[in-house]
Formats: sequence, C-alpha cells, structure tokens
Amino acid sequence: MTEATFDVVAIGNAIVDILAQADDAFIQEQGMTKGSMQLMFSPADADALYAKMGPGREVSGGSAANTVAGIAALGGRCGFIGQVADDQLGQVFAHDIRAAGIRYNTAVRAGEPTTARCLIFVTPDGQRTMNTFLGASQFLPEAALDRELIASGAILYLEGYLWDPEEPRRAMRAAIDIARGAGRRVAFTLSDVFCINRHGDDFRKLMADGLIDILFANENELLALCQTEDFEAAVERAAGQVPLVVVTRSEKGAIAVKGGQRFAVAAEPIERVVDTTGAGDLFAAGFLHGQAQGHGVETSLKLGALCAAEIISHYGARPEADLKTLAAEKLG
Amino acid sequence: MTEATFDVVAIGNAIVDILAQADDAFIQEQGMTKGSMQLMFSPADADALYAKMGPGREVSGGSAANTVAGIAALGGRCGFIGQVADDQLGQVFAHDIRAAGIRYNTAVRAGEPTTARCLIFVTPDGQRTMNTFLGASQFLPEAALDRELIASGAILYLEGYLWDPEEPRRAMRAAIDIARGAGRRVAFTLSDVFCINRHGDDFRKLMADGLIDILFANENELLALCQTEDFEAAVERAAGQVPLVVVTRSEKGAIAVKGGQRFAVAAEPIERVVDTTGAGDLFAAGFLHGQAQGHGVETSLKLGALCAAEIISHYGARPEADLKTLAAEKLG
Repeated sequence: MTEATFDVVAIGNAIVDILAQADDAFIQEQGMTKGSMQLMFSPADADALYAKMGPGREVSGGSAANTVAGIAALGGRCGFIGQVADDQLGQVFAHDIRAAGIRYNTAVRAGEPTTARCLIFVTPDGQRTMNTFLGASQFLPEAALDRELIASGAILYLEGYLWDPEEPRRAMRAAIDIARGAGRRVAFTLSDVFCINRHGDDFRKLMADGLIDILFANENELLALCQTEDFEAAVERAAGQVPLVVVTRSEKGAIAVKGGQRFAVAAEPIERVVDTTGAGDLFAAGFLHGQAQGHGVETSLKLGALCAAEIISHYGARPEADLKTLAAEKLG
Repeated sequence: MTEATFDVVAIGNAIVDILAQADDAFIQEQGMTKGSMQLMFSPADADALYAKMGPGREVSGGSAANTVAGIAALGGRCGFIGQVADDQLGQVFAHDIRAAGIRYNTAVRAGEPTTARCLIFVTPDGQRTMNTFLGASQFLPEAALDRELIASGAILYLEGYLWDPEEPRRAMRAAIDIARGAGRRVAFTLSDVFCINRHGDDFRKLMADGLIDILFANENELLALCQTEDFEAAVERAAGQVPLVVVTRSEKGAIAVKGGQRFAVAAEPIERVVDTTGAGDLFAAGFLHGQAQGHGVETSLKLGALCAAEIISHYGARPEADLKTLAAEKLG
C-alpha cells in the first residue's frame, strides 16, 4: 500500500444550491416534508418551483462536495468527483470547488440536462427543505472515475444521495472496489431518510458485506436504516457491522462508536441558527479531518461540532469563516 | 398628468454579483483600487480574474436594481429595465427581481455576450472592490424601453454606471425625456468616482440643463462631480442646480439639501460590517421610498440609513431582513 497523497476523496452530486427564505405555510402548501430532500424529475418541475421561490442566493453545494470543502478549509488535502454540465452553473460549481483548493477534474458533460440545482427553502427557524433537480449529476459514468485519485485518498467518502440515479450508483460500487483494492477506508453518509427508504436494502448490504468503514447518519437516518424505533438498538446494530459509526443529533450533539467504545460531544453553542443547510456535511468534514490528522474519536467529534456550528450561522453550506483558525483555537 | 401607478421605475445594469473574500494584499497585487468599480472589457479578462477568486456566492446585483429591490422590500411599487442574455445568470437575475415583486419585462438578448457579472472582492474590513463584465447589459437598446412603464412611475431612477456603454446612454436620455414629458421626477446616482471621471461633463450638463430632480452621491463622488476638494463648496454647487441633493458619508451618516435647507442623519449603529456592497444603493432605496410615501427629507434620510445598515450586515446587495417591519419599528 502506497502512502496516501490525499486525505479524503469524495464522490457526490455536483450541485449549485439556490437558497431563499420561506415560511412554514409555504412548505405546507407545496406539500413538502420540512427538513427533507425531495427530487424534482423534470426541468419543468424545477422551473415551476423556482418561479414560486423568493429572491435567492446561489452557493455551491452537494453533500459530499460540501464535506470536502470543509476539510480543505481546515487544511486537509481533498479530491472530488462529480458531474456538471457545460453551462454557467457548472462553471460556478467547478470554480468554487477548485478555489477551495480541491482537486477536481471530472470532464463537463455537453448538452442537456443542465447542471444540478437544489432549491432550498429556509424557514425562520433555520431549518432547510430541499428540492433537487439532479440534472447532469445523475449521469456521472463509471468511466469518469479518476481511479488514481481514488486510490491515492486515505478515505473515500460517498453520499447516499448518489444511489438515486443508476449511473452514479454503478460508479460508486466501482469506486468502493478501487479504494478497498488500494487498502483505503470507505466512509459513507446516509444522506436522508427518504433516500434510505428508497435504497435501504442496498445500504444494509454494503454494511453487511463489510464494505463500509465509517458510517455517518443522523438519528432518524440511523433508525430508518436499522428499521427500528429504538435508538440504542439501532446504534448497536450499526456498530456491529461498521468499525466506526458517527451519529449527529442536532442540538443534542453527536455520538460515535468505535471498537465497542462510545464517545459523545455536545453541540457547539451558537448565537442564532440562520440556515441548517450543510450541518451534517460539515460535521462529517470536521470529523474526517480529525481522523485524517490522526486525532482520536473524541477530538474528531469536537471538530465536527465546531464546523457544523459555523455552517448553520450563515446561509449556504460552504464555510465562510476561517475554519483552520477556529479549529486551532478550539483544540488549543 | 395621470396618477403614477409605480413609485419608482429604474433603469440600470442587470448584473449578477459574485462575492468572495479577499485580503488587502490581493487587491494590491491585482492593481485594483480598493472600494471602486473597474470595468473588465473581455470575457477572457473576466474569466482570468474569476479563476483567481476564492469560492464565491452569487447574488443578483446591479446598482439601480438593488435600489428598487430595497424599495419593493419596504412595500413600494417598482419597475426595472435592464438587459440580460439568454443564459442561466440571466434567469437568476430575472427571477430574483420578479420574486422581489418588481415589474420586469425587458426581453432577453440572444447570443453573446453573456449576462453581466460583477466579481466583488470583500476585504476583512467589509469594503468591496468591484470588477464588472458588462456583457449583455451594455446592449440595452432604446427600443427596449417600456415607455408606458417609465411614464407611470412617480420617479425615474438612473445609475451613472449606465453611461459607460453607448446604447444604454442613448436609452437613458430617451427615458429622461419620457419621464419629464409625463411630469415625473428624475433621480440620478453618480455611482462611482471613476465613472464620473469618464462622464463628468455629461453629468454636469444634465444638471445644468435642469434634467435632474434628485441627485445621489457619496462624498468623493460629489467632489469629483463638482471638481473641487471643498465639500461645502461642492454641496452648494450641486444644490444650486438640483432641487434635492442627497450625500452619503459612510460612518458619518448622510446629509440632504432641499430648497436651501440642510438635513442630516447619523449612520445606524451596527454590530459588524460584513460587506458594504450595495450600501449606497440601499440608502437610495430607503430615501426614495420615504419620498414616495410622502415623508419629509428627515424621515427619508432615516429610512435610507436604516436600509444601508441592513445591507452591510451581510453578504450581497439585496435585502435579507424584513425591511418593512424594521422601518415600521424605526419610524414608530
């Protein structure tokens, strides 16, 4: 096994987020499930919902992409693989991820559909409700995988969301083989309860087959994955199959289980929750950076909580503050 | 003269801002003048600078467009005229201005160049340094003017920036004729010192010809326009030709002169200046809304200061807070 030249290589949907404020009545009227991610299958659906949206701001997003952006902001070396179209939003995505210092060289895809957009409605409580048009992102082909990049990352990080479209799902499986073949660890985030409802069998099989080394979930996702309503039972079940399980619990902080030992961290106190978009993604960023730096689980959890707190204090899921300095202050 | 159905109709560059953090060293290295607006004449120049920029966030901008977005957020009825291209950034601009409740029906322009972009570097002190690629915006033809819309606005609001390209300059002059022919007031913002250096003669002639009813400037712009270093002399000179002169003075607040009487307002105290982009635009919004609502100069100045304070407390030049409620609280 050669030494890893990247800390984390992620594969995920390459999305530009469009964020706007909305009230709870709007979320209800539109039949959205608050706090979840819903797919929009046609450009017409996406346009119709966009027309109902308030004035927006655009920030690059995508769950795994947000995570590597966070790790890079902390000083980690990252790569990203994800599909954009040959359009302005694709240029924005590619610019932002490269400007964050991340290796990104997935070739753009010509023609329709456009680059993925996620229409995010942020309610006054800071909760985000997402509506994603996957666009070009759902056509990430196995052939687009940079095998060398994947093999050179200490950790391969995958998002559950990518299981929805067929081509990326195939690509994910191939990427897992490449990473494991190179002796790397595979980290996986469950993404969303509805996503688990759609692909739980696949996710459970990945775990049962011992293909996942680090699992990220929030409470509800873990319950859905383990098909139980008992949190402790769910944690036990997941920890029985995955060497390192990390569960975020919003304002209750997060826990992790490794080798039968359980660790916990409280949520960082913050002045005002502006927009929770990316909270889980940035928690994963802090945690993975801690792992990559050789820190223990406890310190990794602390870094996760710190990054999550930064991201929910402003709009958008890419860090605005100097995470490196914040982390140095925190860890002393 | 028929009753006006719009409070303010604005004509301006239709721009999407791309904002990123930068340090002072970068501004210097790039040979930019901190705090100013510089034009980029080719798409290649724009792309080259974009490549050097950090991760960005996109928010609709354009000076006069920001102003009407502010007025609309305060509850005013507004229209906007400005040229975008048939591309994704054009869709973003059109969506955002319509979503703000503003009448906007300028037809998109097919083919090259793209919709205007402004690359805005925000330094740690909150100051913004702008680099604009005018793109489609510079091809706003006189034929695109909605004459009925202009004639139905109590105030026509124009930005000095539009004097740079030839076609919009012609359109501006025609719009002034339409507005004055309909018995409306014409408000004009000087935009930028360098812009005045380029077009001061035109601006001075507009004033001398009695075509401007309300003039907006900051201190440096007024000095450049009046070709003096003496602030009092400049105020006097401008007030001799324009019935209502409004001068913003950053942290010193703002003054206005009307009918020989001078009014002043202090700057609103704010916790932290995040990004001054749009401060002048939103000051104009508050002031013009006050005027449209029939308030006196003093109250109009207060509204201006309030809106400017809101906009500099976050990234981007479009309001995020509920300006209407803020204004109601402020004015009691």
